[in-house]
Amino acid sequence: MDKRVAVIGAGPSGLAQLRAFQSAASKGADIPEIVCFEKQANWGGLWNYTWRTGLDQYGEPVHGSMYRYLWSNGPKEGLEFADYSFEEHFGKQIASYPPRAVLFDYIEGRVNKAGVRDWIRFETVVRLVTWDEKTRKFTVTVQDLPNDHCYSEEFDNVIVASGHFSTPNVPEFPGFDRFNGRILHAHDFRDAREFIGKDILIVGTSYSAEDIGSQCWKYGAKSITNCYRTAPMGFDWPENWEERPLLERVDINTATFKDGSTKRIDAIILCTGYKHHFPFLTDDLRLRTANRLATADLYKGVAYVHNPALFYVGMQDQWFTFNMFDAQAWWARDVILGRIKIPADKKELVADVEARVAGEDAGQDSYDAIRYQGDYVKELIAETDYPSFDVDGANEAFFQWKKHKQKGIMEFRNHSYRSVITGTMAPPHHTPWKDALDDSLESYLGIEETPAAAE
Amino acid sequence: MDKRVAVIGAGPSGLAQLRAFQSAASKGADIPEIVCFEKQANWGGLWNYTWRTGLDQYGEPVHGSMYRYLWSNGPKEGLEFADYSFEEHFGKQIASYPPRAVLFDYIEGRVNKAGVRDWIRFETVVRLVTWDEKTRKFTVTVQDLPNDHCYSEEFDNVIVASGHFSTPNVPEFPGFDRFNGRILHAHDFRDAREFIGKDILIVGTSYSAEDIGSQCWKYGAKSITNCYRTAPMGFDWPENWEERPLLERVDINTATFKDGSTKRIDAIILCTGYKHHFPFLTDDLRLRTANRLATADLYKGVAYVHNPALFYVGMQDQWFTFNMFDAQAWWARDVILGRIKIPADKKELVADVEARVAGEDAGQDSYDAIRYQGDYVKELIAETDYPSFDVDGANEAFFQWKKHKQKGIMEFRNHSYRSVITGTMAPPHHTPWKDALDDSLESYLGIEETPAAAE
Repeated sequence: MDKRVAVIGAGPSGLAQLRAFQSAASKGADIPEIVCFEKQANWGGLWNYTWRTGLDQYGEPVHGSMYRYLWSNGPKEGLEFADYSFEEHFGKQIASYPPRAVLFDYIEGRVNKAGVRDWIRFETVVRLVTWDEKTRKFTVTVQDLPNDHCYSEEFDNVIVASGHFSTPNVPEFPGFDRFNGRILHAHDFRDAREFIGKDILIVGTSYSAEDIGSQCWKYGAKSITNCYRTAPMGFDWPENWEERPLLERVDINTATFKDGSTKRIDAIILCTGYKHHFPFLTDDLRLRTANRLATADLYKGVAYVHNPALFYVGMQDQWFTFNMFDAQAWWARDVILGRIKIPADKKELVADVEARVAGEDAGQDSYDAIRYQGDYVKELIAETDYPSFDVDGANEAFFQWKKHKQKGIMEFRNHSYRSVITGTMAPPHHTPWKDALDDSLESYLGIEETPAAAE
Repeated sequence: MDKRVAVIGAGPSGLAQLRAFQSAASKGADIPEIVCFEKQANWGGLWNYTWRTGLDQYGEPVHGSMYRYLWSNGPKEGLEFADYSFEEHFGKQIASYPPRAVLFDYIEGRVNKAGVRDWIRFETVVRLVTWDEKTRKFTVTVQDLPNDHCYSEEFDNVIVASGHFSTPNVPEFPGFDRFNGRILHAHDFRDAREFIGKDILIVGTSYSAEDIGSQCWKYGAKSITNCYRTAPMGFDWPENWEERPLLERVDINTATFKDGSTKRIDAIILCTGYKHHFPFLTDDLRLRTANRLATADLYKGVAYVHNPALFYVGMQDQWFTFNMFDAQAWWARDVILGRIKIPADKKELVADVEARVAGEDAGQDSYDAIRYQGDYVKELIAETDYPSFDVDGANEAFFQWKKHKQKGIMEFRNHSYRSVITGTMAPPHHTPWKDALDDSLESYLGIEETPAAAE
């Protein structure tokens, strides 16, 4: 096969794509040449922690939104790879809410086993992708950062797997230009201990607000105030955490909220979400979508309806993550291998998207949303050889998780769930989350550190 | 004239270029169509303050390195426009070290008078510039950010005026990944009051280190420690400011320096300089130079030796600023208008660069460096109709400034100098710099605020 395929990004979505092709090759399929362009020096995407914020050592936007002390905010039983269980990787079952280092190790384990690292050109940022209607090829212009070298290559397919939790959505509120403290977006949050003893204002109510606020609380912030546009999160917060209506303005260090109430604050953390941002794609190729389960313009949630030689993996809002990226990557692979045909009539592609949007919109609550995305995962894996798994069981883990959060927002990570891949129940963790200040892999797995490894 | 010229950036350098062309047109010259692409929503470049850091509202790297409370760190008499004096703008002579808002007003005054705002496409970021040897045209691909629209246009000349104090040079030191506080580059520094009561470590000894440290001191940091690679700055610092050899590592909140000494610190500010960074230029067009007075690869410090249809304005390290950008912009304009011929033999261009490098290298100290750059300004303005001015007088202001800094690093801004454009002596400022906490234009100019304008 003389096709060439570019994969943009080597995070969970891009790595799923590499593993999908390697899996086919290992079963004897003739696969295209795969070139994965990764801006960072290592794989793992968001799971590759960096202390850097803003611009990196090459002057490129820092990809990472990862912060220290992060533990998974959903049960690992909802994201387990169907072809590579936690038990296979760690040699035993582990507790259900692993911290970053543990999940990074797991992600890396599968692709180390697959041997796909050589397909990745690290520290290489994609500058521009263009499509030539005559040759039906993409030209991908990249920059090799350490060698300061810009070059272009042609590809038959491009798979965009660059994520959509890296480019912050940063609103402005009156008075921000004269606030006497730090204003940061969640994207630039790194170490909660910076905020010990401080009164923190968090703008937003989604996962970042909930988890960054919880980190600040856990590591010793004086108080947490979060504000909401539509409704409070409504969890049973600790006594030094309160929810207020949306911020109206700040005057030096005083925040005024929509209900007229005020509060003195030291720092403002904007947990206001992320943008789908593709500065390297021209108008004809660039996905423009809200962050939702049924993305705009993607047939089967993957193939770009305006040019189905272009694929997007992982661009949905997510309950399912790693295993959904797998389902998408296997599906995109099979289109490229000619095993799956995309309808030639664009109307059919558009109709598919419309049906997905209607399906999502028909849901009543987040339980429906979980089922909707579970059904989507089922639909895709039924069309490829990705190992079938008990998606309903994963749904159930999500349902339980939501109930556990309602019961105790600072305690939900102490619960355990059953693997839908191996059927094994996760053990309880050795320490309640709120008391576990060391987030290292060794601490989580209960590994005795040797003196050399001890810090 | 059917030529088209692209100017990248509407900061002091880009605006100098627009004013240069407008000046020629106002004297009856036939000028090309000028299109200036500016990423920000307003002109002024670094002088356009924003509270934002990292990525902006469109997900683009924030251009600004400007912080609150900044006053000019050199006398305004060294940077005054020869065609637009401070007295013309303010209707009176003003004190010598204006804060940001005053300088912004002055920069804006000249281009408002020139009427060139319509030449600028704001909130439009340049994605890629390519050169076609056959057509001898540049293709400039840009993105209109508010309209999310990517498009390309052809130009005969491109003038890069995007600055080189926007992309931070960010080194890593051992332990940064586990430091329990904020680590930021000077580029992301905004409000010194964030650091009230804190022990601050500043890495570096150049202007950012000196001035950001001084700001933190002025607004109430508990202590300032700065560390140096080669030599301390050696000013007569206040008693809570000390200089140490270079940082070796951090362990949680303890910094260890090359001499083995340690200090507990709360925050680290990397004042480690900036990079010349042109992510929008291909290898054949991209300037690669150290930050020095004699830049690599620029004939007359302006025309790119490998393709003299391409110009760079303001890419030198700088004693002279606004008036040097003017000298360069008038010179580049006259090449484009055919008034100045660039030698056809590339060897002559290369020899010019080599001679400039040798000239800079022959200097012994910073006084020589100031004279060297003054001579360069004289050389350029002698070749165009930019108003001649007393460059030696400006040199003299710089010499005095250096002596005033040695005498009192927290007092030098209380001195006054004589304008080399109008001959008028600047008045002393009404308040010593260290006591002047309000950096507004109204406060600096001693304007009574009306109740409506009062905050």
